[in-house]
Amino acid sequence: MTLKSVNVCLSPALLPFYELDNTTAVVIDIFRASSSMCYGLANGAHSIIPVAEIDECLAYKGKGYLLAAERDGAVVEGFDFGNSPFSYTPEKVAGRTVVLTTTNGTRAIQHCKRAKTVVMGSFLNISALTQWLKNQDGHVLLVCAGWKNHMCLEDTIFAGAVVDRLQAAEVTMDDAAYAAQHLYHSAREDLATFLAEASHSKRMKHLHIEKDIAFCLQEDVVAAIPVLKNGELVCLSECVPIAQ
Amino acid sequence: MTLKSVNVCLSPALLPFYELDNTTAVVIDIFRASSSMCYGLANGAHSIIPVAEIDECLAYKGKGYLLAAERDGAVVEGFDFGNSPFSYTPEKVAGRTVVLTTTNGTRAIQHCKRAKTVVMGSFLNISALTQWLKNQDGHVLLVCAGWKNHMCLEDTIFAGAVVDRLQAAEVTMDDAAYAAQHLYHSAREDLATFLAEASHSKRMKHLHIEKDIAFCLQEDVVAAIPVLKNGELVCLSECVPIAQ
Repeated sequence: MTLKSVNVCLSPALLPFYELDNTTAVVIDIFRASSSMCYGLANGAHSIIPVAEIDECLAYKGKGYLLAAERDGAVVEGFDFGNSPFSYTPEKVAGRTVVLTTTNGTRAIQHCKRAKTVVMGSFLNISALTQWLKNQDGHVLLVCAGWKNHMCLEDTIFAGAVVDRLQAAEVTMDDAAYAAQHLYHSAREDLATFLAEASHSKRMKHLHIEKDIAFCLQEDVVAAIPVLKNGELVCLSECVPIAQ
Repeated sequence: MTLKSVNVCLSPALLPFYELDNTTAVVIDIFRASSSMCYGLANGAHSIIPVAEIDECLAYKGKGYLLAAERDGAVVEGFDFGNSPFSYTPEKVAGRTVVLTTTNGTRAIQHCKRAKTVVMGSFLNISALTQWLKNQDGHVLLVCAGWKNHMCLEDTIFAGAVVDRLQAAEVTMDDAAYAAQHLYHSAREDLATFLAEASHSKRMKHLHIEKDIAFCLQEDVVAAIPVLKNGELVCLSECVPIAQ
């Protein structure tokens, strides 16, 4: 088993230009979908069903699911919660299935479905994720969910952190992977300050979710790796979910 | 007249997500289309007609035009030349109109046509370009031609160099502009070495055009700014073309 390449897709709109055969796609939506998914599964959620549209989410109403919907950074009216990691604590999600739709992250997942495997990445599970990726065969594509098809700094920097850990002589990288890695090097000394200039951080400041941002920038809070199986995100069997 | 924003579009495929009203679009294809266009117009070419497809270029045959076509880095068989800057010297292009199609650059131009103004940028004309951009009203969008819809380092770094010169308190920037600027800061001490790792540079090494690469990384060789007028690139009237 050999890892052959690590490439970075900076926007879901660029996915059509990537080969997804024999590829492990890692979907990245640091603020906050992929972080909350990692946290929720680590906290004992049975599964998380990512859906692209609010209507699809509503179709699950009254059937025992927790419904979560976020648009433009806020919880959509009428839903149990959105994508704040603090909504994915053991008390709230243990044993439950969450149906979630977000502005960027869940749509990115839909676009990755033709990949061999789809997993979710975040700073919260970075070591577990990269350790597992190193043992995969074929190609890794780090898919940044971005913001409405635009690249965003936090997803790209996380992609760069993963590239940094996977880089090896025999692993090829595209220009976006080099760029992401250099950005990570510029940012790693003080991620929070570096990201304070990002448009998405500014956007989130208006929403008063600085606590969420700080939470999502912590490394290795969980060992869970969410993997897409039959349309649901579940804990990868190799991982041991850790309840907080 | 006030410059309001400087944004960076990392791939032509992302152009649909940008507002182009009241926008000056700067098309960037450092290796080598935009560099050669700046050089050719500075060297007295009457105009350069960018066309997206080889067939469109062929339609100009036998009518006194110089026909130039590049695909995958090489001159297309049967054409006068491709996009090497050394084909755009005064002896070759003075007084002539060149019809040019390239893998990435001329297609990016086609996609920008709904902008208020479309100009071409390269290291060769960077000071003239940024000086002129500073006096524009509205928005500047730096459009990286990339490589087959993927981002490429050299175009992004040049965009970052332009961002660096246009940055001001009242000018907003998107995340891609911040990213490009940081990359430029990482690269500027030794552009050639930094870019040696770029996939496009590696691609070009196989074509033995290292001379072209070195030429295209020179700053301020010309003062010409190619601007799109009625489908043709001509020298912006404010500029004084300098023959070499």
